[in-house]
Amino acid sequence: MRIGIFDSGLGGLTVARAIREKLPQADLFYFGDTARVPYGIKSAESVNRYALEIAKYLRFTRNIDVLVAACNTVSATAIPTIKEAIGEIQLFDVISAAIELISTTAPENSSIAVLGTLATIRSEAYETRLNLKRPDLKISTQACPLLVPLAEEGWIDHPVAIESLRIYLAPFLKNTPDYLILGCTHYPLFKEVILHLFEGKKPILVDSADTIALALAANQTTLDLSHKGCMDVTVSDIPQRFEILMERFLGIHADFISRHAF
Amino acid sequence: MRIGIFDSGLGGLTVARAIREKLPQADLFYFGDTARVPYGIKSAESVNRYALEIAKYLRFTRNIDVLVAACNTVSATAIPTIKEAIGEIQLFDVISAAIELISTTAPENSSIAVLGTLATIRSEAYETRLNLKRPDLKISTQACPLLVPLAEEGWIDHPVAIESLRIYLAPFLKNTPDYLILGCTHYPLFKEVILHLFEGKKPILVDSADTIALALAANQTTLDLSHKGCMDVTVSDIPQRFEILMERFLGIHADFISRHAF
Repeated sequence: MRIGIFDSGLGGLTVARAIREKLPQADLFYFGDTARVPYGIKSAESVNRYALEIAKYLRFTRNIDVLVAACNTVSATAIPTIKEAIGEIQLFDVISAAIELISTTAPENSSIAVLGTLATIRSEAYETRLNLKRPDLKISTQACPLLVPLAEEGWIDHPVAIESLRIYLAPFLKNTPDYLILGCTHYPLFKEVILHLFEGKKPILVDSADTIALALAANQTTLDLSHKGCMDVTVSDIPQRFEILMERFLGIHADFISRHAF
Repeated sequence: MRIGIFDSGLGGLTVARAIREKLPQADLFYFGDTARVPYGIKSAESVNRYALEIAKYLRFTRNIDVLVAACNTVSATAIPTIKEAIGEIQLFDVISAAIELISTTAPENSSIAVLGTLATIRSEAYETRLNLKRPDLKISTQACPLLVPLAEEGWIDHPVAIESLRIYLAPFLKNTPDYLILGCTHYPLFKEVILHLFEGKKPILVDSADTIALALAANQTTLDLSHKGCMDVTVSDIPQRFEILMERFLGIHADFISRHAF
């Protein structure tokens, strides 16, 4: 099984790691668009164009069976465009995975909070898709533009990150939601800090990386357990900085690293 | 006089504003590469390619007399590439302007601190070029990757910005440098916060926007004072968000806004 995974940059490696844990026999082909990162502050039109180029690239050069959009911004704005480009190949995306989990497991009238990038929150993708399946849920959202730069600076359990999170989470800290969706692949790095900020009742954290790995694993009927999957990484900027930061996000080694610029 | 000005995104508008103040009769053609912003975390190779595309675009579609690289990352890494592309057109860049000012006015053995993006600081452009002209100066540098996202979030005189600056400036707060170069076009937004953090002696702040406007004005021999210059803005992503943020950086209106994607 050959799984293509892509993101604007490094964040999607948290998804690759979760998939590797659940499906160690699958070959993973990761694309990080490091020359154009971040997507979260850009228009839907530009994000659509970038996602289309990458989806076609993975389809035609890596011969993938499954494609995973590991970027919330892409999942919020570009899914119809990608579906058209990849034809019969199965598509998974981080937003659909989170929505599937919540809509099938949340008790009636649960409250759901969503954290995301500017583009994800502006798209209203979570509210729109959740409302269609579960009109009983109460949904609030919050854009957190500083969390990605904070994660890439390595300021995780750090006074500046804690203060920023306290500001972004202010409405939720007063009134704990039942579920808190970490709607960006960088945000799971802040899991512990976020939980620590809730003094009484804690929300259930929904992490895109885990949910999509579960969805992919549930979809597999036959597993060749004798094969150890490879990890092939392509980036659009030079790989130097990517290799250094991979360690922080993935904690494992890539078998191949190459570059493709659009 | 037709002046092309370009930056990775919005920051260079602080340079456009300073030029407009000094040379109100010049027509300004601004290019903001909002589809690929930021440059400060990308490789020199990618930054070179982007700068080349924009320099050619401004030269051939706007018929400019002068080109201003209003981006410190570009000025640190891509000047030789741009010079080759624009031929006889005069080129100004924010780093050369700051270095010219300091090397001609700083007293002997002055201490110079430089703040910049990761790419600018890694390039060692300030130290290398200053050392050539003034080997007596003592230069220290500090990368501040969070300042651009903080500025774009609008968190300027804000506890999170103050705490981040206190960390980045720590070595300089103990021992005030004579000059502090704001080596990124977003940083002048933090001028007051920075000065406030120095309790005793304050450093002289060197702002790329002011220094390059002075250099351009000094270069002008004839001025047609009857002409009121226009402000023409092109961006590579859709202009919507740009127009909103322009007000914050520029405080004036663009006469024309268009889009060109590479």
